[in-house]
Amino acid sequence: MSRIVRFHRIGGPEVLQFDDIDVSAPQAGEVQIRMRAIGLNRAEVMYRSGEYVHPPRFPATLGYEGSGVVEAVGSGVSGFAVGDAVSVVPAFSLLDYGMYGELVKAPAHAVVKNPAGLSFEQAAATWMMYGTAWGALIELGGLKQGEAVLIGAASSSVGLAAIEIANAVGAVPIALTRSDKKRDALLRAGAKHVIASGGPALTKQVLELTGGTGARIAFDPVGGPESAHQLGALAQHGTYFQYGTLDMRDLSVPAMDLLGRRLTVRGYQIFEITLDAARLERAKRFITEGLASGALKPAIDRTFPFDRIADAHRYMESGEQVGKIVVTV
Amino acid sequence: MSRIVRFHRIGGPEVLQFDDIDVSAPQAGEVQIRMRAIGLNRAEVMYRSGEYVHPPRFPATLGYEGSGVVEAVGSGVSGFAVGDAVSVVPAFSLLDYGMYGELVKAPAHAVVKNPAGLSFEQAAATWMMYGTAWGALIELGGLKQGEAVLIGAASSSVGLAAIEIANAVGAVPIALTRSDKKRDALLRAGAKHVIASGGPALTKQVLELTGGTGARIAFDPVGGPESAHQLGALAQHGTYFQYGTLDMRDLSVPAMDLLGRRLTVRGYQIFEITLDAARLERAKRFITEGLASGALKPAIDRTFPFDRIADAHRYMESGEQVGKIVVTV
Repeated sequence: MSRIVRFHRIGGPEVLQFDDIDVSAPQAGEVQIRMRAIGLNRAEVMYRSGEYVHPPRFPATLGYEGSGVVEAVGSGVSGFAVGDAVSVVPAFSLLDYGMYGELVKAPAHAVVKNPAGLSFEQAAATWMMYGTAWGALIELGGLKQGEAVLIGAASSSVGLAAIEIANAVGAVPIALTRSDKKRDALLRAGAKHVIASGGPALTKQVLELTGGTGARIAFDPVGGPESAHQLGALAQHGTYFQYGTLDMRDLSVPAMDLLGRRLTVRGYQIFEITLDAARLERAKRFITEGLASGALKPAIDRTFPFDRIADAHRYMESGEQVGKIVVTV
Repeated sequence: MSRIVRFHRIGGPEVLQFDDIDVSAPQAGEVQIRMRAIGLNRAEVMYRSGEYVHPPRFPATLGYEGSGVVEAVGSGVSGFAVGDAVSVVPAFSLLDYGMYGELVKAPAHAVVKNPAGLSFEQAAATWMMYGTAWGALIELGGLKQGEAVLIGAASSSVGLAAIEIANAVGAVPIALTRSDKKRDALLRAGAKHVIASGGPALTKQVLELTGGTGARIAFDPVGGPESAHQLGALAQHGTYFQYGTLDMRDLSVPAMDLLGRRLTVRGYQIFEITLDAARLERAKRFITEGLASGALKPAIDRTFPFDRIADAHRYMESGEQVGKIVVTV
């Protein structure tokens, strides 16, 4: 038997419930993992709330991230043995797998061995945050030394990961945040500049900070009408990556900015990286090297015990965190 | 002396005036051309109206397109001789050059010899329309056989060029137009389907016509809030190219479409092609071969004499045309 967390209807954190289920043996291509730590992310909150890119199928499992110990290995799976410390890369649909549980299964292509020296909590925090940021900034965006990058919702785990990755390649991370409250934390996390204002003032500040050039990339999980002001601050041929829908309204894209500077606006999800074997391999290399060198240090804001996973969801929705929220099992 | 058309203030077609000027000898890298035909385009109307991506500098010359006979060649220019029939590719700024004149100069990199069998009128109509459409659909968009492409303002010269280019690679051109009036003309021009409705009905029709897949590319000079309905009709990883700003309002980009299908919205101008020597070479090859094979046939809607160039602007603003408006000199 395994206690897993599921929800049987759309709703607030209170719909998360513990169900005792028999976990069947891993099938071909699957790995069974006894979870030690689970990483939480905004997509799961939106999925639970019925606001994700696809609706849930009930009873709905959830959880894209986690780390633990291999309990069993399905046929055809090589490279993993019982007892290995591993973690899970988001490379599957929540309709098929969910990591919120004591004993779970994952497809082998989504499982990686933990780098040496990484705790289960850190490993659970690693892949979504760094994978998401690496994919947009480096793999698709080609961010280079000296170029400025705007990082929306910068105190989120992915935002902090983007700051570290930008610094790792010598780029200039400009953190965007809603208030001055998190300014110091963002500077400590490596942001070169922090902008706490929105609207036209944001555009103006970015242009001042970049000597009029603008930023090469904006990397934003918010979107909505405010996106116009980030687009106004992009350089020639700049790209705005939207990787979340914290603002569910349509993006506003000023036509003269789009055409005059030939900007790109692109919807982006980590699955573009993790479901592509070659890209995932490059991501793993960059991230593993970054963890080893100390350039990347997964920032964990707070941990919650498994029993209080609904409180962990509440805390994420409060927006108070700076970094990853992790649930220990 | 040469009569050239300039404007000395922003305004309607009436601000276009004939000025007699001394055209100096071509400088290094320039070609002097006695114009025989001038192609008109929407960008020039917007420039004259003060709505273009950059403001004019007075007195302002204009004209991106034309064809004529080489009158003189500047130093360092090879490949052209006095008497050659040539045409002009839009590969310069209207702040530096303008083709509205009897005798004009152009930078040599923007001059091409006319393919055999092409009249001056056809040659004047060729490069903007085919260059613009080829760049987005083929060079940047990689349109392939069997894929659907939405073509906004399809009865414009660039729209018709896009229809021909889509057919040339075996793709499925779906023409978008504002009313049923031009339906037959668009089908005759090669459109596989014509959609004359906007709003959600547009999305619905495209999905029906593509068996639920959606279009790989939308190629649109309009933009504005209506863009949302084209974006709703794009396939996974589809791209919306905006190449004009007929609607000056912000584009509306539905966040769930952008993220759920990882769409790209991209501002695009022909200069991305014509100012890049390698791309321009590929464009010339595709277009020259298409003209030779008959796959591409520049559609000229109507010609006006040089003296009536203001009327030609009025006619363009009426939106009645299907194809290129050409002024003969």
